[in-house]
Amino acid sequence: MSGEPIYGLSDWGTSRFRLWLVDAAGNVVGEKRSNDGLDASRARGFQATLEEHLAALGAPANLPVIICGMAGSRQGWVEANYVAVPADLKAILSGAVRVEGTERDVRIIPGLSQAGRLANVMRGEETQLLGAMLARNLADGVVAMPGTHSKWVELENGRATRFSTYLTGELYALLASQSILRHSVRDAGTSASADHPQFAEAVALMLSGERMLGELFAIRAAMLLEGLSPEGAASRLSGLLIGAEIAGAKSRHRGRVTLVASGAMAALYGKALALARIEFTGVDADEAVRKGLFVAASTVWPSQQGHRL
Amino acid sequence: MSGEPIYGLSDWGTSRFRLWLVDAAGNVVGEKRSNDGLDASRARGFQATLEEHLAALGAPANLPVIICGMAGSRQGWVEANYVAVPADLKAILSGAVRVEGTERDVRIIPGLSQAGRLANVMRGEETQLLGAMLARNLADGVVAMPGTHSKWVELENGRATRFSTYLTGELYALLASQSILRHSVRDAGTSASADHPQFAEAVALMLSGERMLGELFAIRAAMLLEGLSPEGAASRLSGLLIGAEIAGAKSRHRGRVTLVASGAMAALYGKALALARIEFTGVDADEAVRKGLFVAASTVWPSQQGHRL
Repeated sequence: MSGEPIYGLSDWGTSRFRLWLVDAAGNVVGEKRSNDGLDASRARGFQATLEEHLAALGAPANLPVIICGMAGSRQGWVEANYVAVPADLKAILSGAVRVEGTERDVRIIPGLSQAGRLANVMRGEETQLLGAMLARNLADGVVAMPGTHSKWVELENGRATRFSTYLTGELYALLASQSILRHSVRDAGTSASADHPQFAEAVALMLSGERMLGELFAIRAAMLLEGLSPEGAASRLSGLLIGAEIAGAKSRHRGRVTLVASGAMAALYGKALALARIEFTGVDADEAVRKGLFVAASTVWPSQQGHRL
Repeated sequence: MSGEPIYGLSDWGTSRFRLWLVDAAGNVVGEKRSNDGLDASRARGFQATLEEHLAALGAPANLPVIICGMAGSRQGWVEANYVAVPADLKAILSGAVRVEGTERDVRIIPGLSQAGRLANVMRGEETQLLGAMLARNLADGVVAMPGTHSKWVELENGRATRFSTYLTGELYALLASQSILRHSVRDAGTSASADHPQFAEAVALMLSGERMLGELFAIRAAMLLEGLSPEGAASRLSGLLIGAEIAGAKSRHRGRVTLVASGAMAALYGKALALARIEFTGVDADEAVRKGLFVAASTVWPSQQGHRL
């Protein structure tokens, strides 16, 4: 049974916008997904975009909303400064920034940063990470969050200590839609399959130490000379990239792995991790970010939850 | 002193078109460069495109023209089949295909192919390779031809035995103009410099065995957190890609290296090869392809040369 919404939770990224209304128990009572990422929203106004989606779900005018993701970047709505690692994830909760000039109480969660030679940043994944840690009671190990910019984070005693980023998803999209390989995967119109032999072969190749840059063109050549199918080409391309990511992350991070992914992504990474003989536990990516946002909201507005409970 | 043109020589690729008129001694007596690559030319017609450029140079109506590059691909003007390695480069000369239905004698040079697990193809570079071999009297060793799709070819006793392809140039262009890194390199408006410390550092990192996929995002993070300049970002991106190419090629091909490159590309690859402690001899890329085309033309139409000489 679901109750009245007490919070709006949003994961607002570069290319997509997601909004959930949740009740006091954390149950989803309304959901919106759209392509209103940063660029689209900047043109129309961030507040107008958010209010429109809230109105479509019939959200009350005083419903507080918490946001994670690129909406908190310099190019976003309001800049929420990074919290530097090593960091207790609770620091991101207390660091949420209030958006000025809105009647509604809207807060944006800061990202994580890592200075120096291994300079790195994340926005959005820190909230997903927090949700995954709570869902699995994690305090140590490695959390892998595949996506446009895949993040691998090391945890020690409940703190995020180091992380790395792989351009896997973005590179797949660029190669499949804009490079010479687009002819082989039908302009990104073909999906990769974890069960296609080309996927496993490509992952194994990358795990053996080969370099991805020298293997990409072979997809084109295999189509021309060996009749490689679009499904095979997409699966091979995916295997090369995911394999390269896992080979890189494996050499950098030690510990038991938690894979935060949903749907097709979970299947592809699950298969690749198995090929790499890396044991892992899975957490649904959507659930993780929602859980992280809910905990953040409950911390920022405890009275809301208390009042309803 | 230059004489009358006896051949038209063209390197006709996916994105660019180059045409030279040469006299009996191989001297250039006319030159055109344009962006009339495959896509532009297909729409207007290949013959019309070629004739327009020839007319702009005042070429005689009976001047024979020899072409290498993607104009000979399935998506090109007339398909010239591949010659399989191991191959004597002279085989590509005798395999030139006559374009039917044109009054002018136009021939297209076939590419090279490599079957099996290391499936690979090239079109255009085989002619550049032939020119480089003649220019340096090469029969053995490795010839590196950087570009959109960099090719590394092994030679044995004057024959091309194996080759590999790296998507270096295409990936640089995609990342610099379309990825999250475009903000760091000002939408590809900043050039990489071989003398920038970021270039050398990135090359060294790739030679040390790191994986490129996990280093790309660091450019963005270093801009946000460490104030990395656009010049530094472009040089770092170039160093990561060229370093990954050289690390890959080094593990695959053995032998003395000949680098076929011009201008900025020659400087970047020269520096990277030096960092990798790979000795090499340089050949100008334009000269190499022109020399290859000239030899091909002289083989196809020996009487032309004989007559004029």
